[in-house]
Amino acid sequence: IAAHNHQLFTGNHHTVINLVSSPGAGKTTLLVSTLKQLKHQFSVGVIEGDQQTRLDAEQIEQTGVPVIQINTGKGCHLEADRVQQAYQQLALSSPGLIFIENVGNLVCPAHFDLGEHFRVVILSVTEGDNKPLKYPDIFHQADLLIINKTDLLPYVDFDVAQCIDHARRIQPDIAALALSCRSGENMFTWLQWIATQFNTVTADRSSAAANR
Amino acid sequence: IAAHNHQLFTGNHHTVINLVSSPGAGKTTLLVSTLKQLKHQFSVGVIEGDQQTRLDAEQIEQTGVPVIQINTGKGCHLEADRVQQAYQQLALSSPGLIFIENVGNLVCPAHFDLGEHFRVVILSVTEGDNKPLKYPDIFHQADLLIINKTDLLPYVDFDVAQCIDHARRIQPDIAALALSCRSGENMFTWLQWIATQFNTVTADRSSAAANR
Repeated sequence: IAAHNHQLFTGNHHTVINLVSSPGAGKTTLLVSTLKQLKHQFSVGVIEGDQQTRLDAEQIEQTGVPVIQINTGKGCHLEADRVQQAYQQLALSSPGLIFIENVGNLVCPAHFDLGEHFRVVILSVTEGDNKPLKYPDIFHQADLLIINKTDLLPYVDFDVAQCIDHARRIQPDIAALALSCRSGENMFTWLQWIATQFNTVTADRSSAAANR
Repeated sequence: IAAHNHQLFTGNHHTVINLVSSPGAGKTTLLVSTLKQLKHQFSVGVIEGDQQTRLDAEQIEQTGVPVIQINTGKGCHLEADRVQQAYQQLALSSPGLIFIENVGNLVCPAHFDLGEHFRVVILSVTEGDNKPLKYPDIFHQADLLIINKTDLLPYVDFDVAQCIDHARRIQPDIAALALSCRSGENMFTWLQWIATQFNTVTADRSSAAANR
């Protein structure tokens, strides 16, 4: 189902980014800040995963970006079938960008491919710089590590360089970005990263079409 | 197996407390602070759960308290059988206190009874006060909610009273305690809570023996 999703997304010129993290690492706040800026340039949609409530979806809706909430109940991660249903419901115009906010969990979402193009793992500076070593699977599967809430660095023991080093022991090719929605640090670099990935997927699709 | 563990623990006068939280909520730091104080009055042991590494066990060892590390690999929670093995390896003198530090995960450990007497869910103030609503299962199964890292309250948006209110919508009888290992706020209340639970289990056991 994930492989089918991937084809579907690419065929429809939709670049899909799966955001994974612990609960409370700041996925929703980062997403809201991101959407406020991207929505002026891109067609954007969101698929929200949570065990219960529509709280996150309601925050996203306030940005004016369309969102589909998936409640997993006892489930600890999103799976490709429900993402496909949500994707169909979104019915986003193309080309465009779709963000999937996974259930807050640094373990289980690692093992479930949703068909996304890129996976971004978010770790906040309050969680400790040793997390890539302790929870390696989710870092092993990720394209980008976001070290979030850098505005709190003065108040916690967290070594950004060491955290990135730990992540690269697990996944040598992982990109890394330390940012803060609150201070705005590196938010523009994050938006640029998204735009670059969008262009990559769209270019791949165009060249695939040209080669056909 | 959990029911058998429970009998075993109680029969051996061991009070067992299962600590659950997201990765980075501060379980290990809280445990280290707690052990440094309790070890002078109680026989204490620790069972550590992580996907990978002995990092947490090494921190615990520095307190001089015996610890058994369980690495779950791809597993997202501890289960009763491996806890039983670790318990046998600990071979703690009795009466005593055993802390189980579960794998960092606010979802899956909710569904796995380890035979513990008490379950404590730890949420740090950087994670957001809506987490009990979004991840209800783990709060539903807990005896005590610890709101951790209160030293960071000035720098984040987190309403302690609202968080407790949310948790009690899920589990009306949950006790709650806001504390900080860094500032020491309410650490003594936490130690008192532990001592009270220890006395309860020991008293239950003594009255059960008297009634036999």
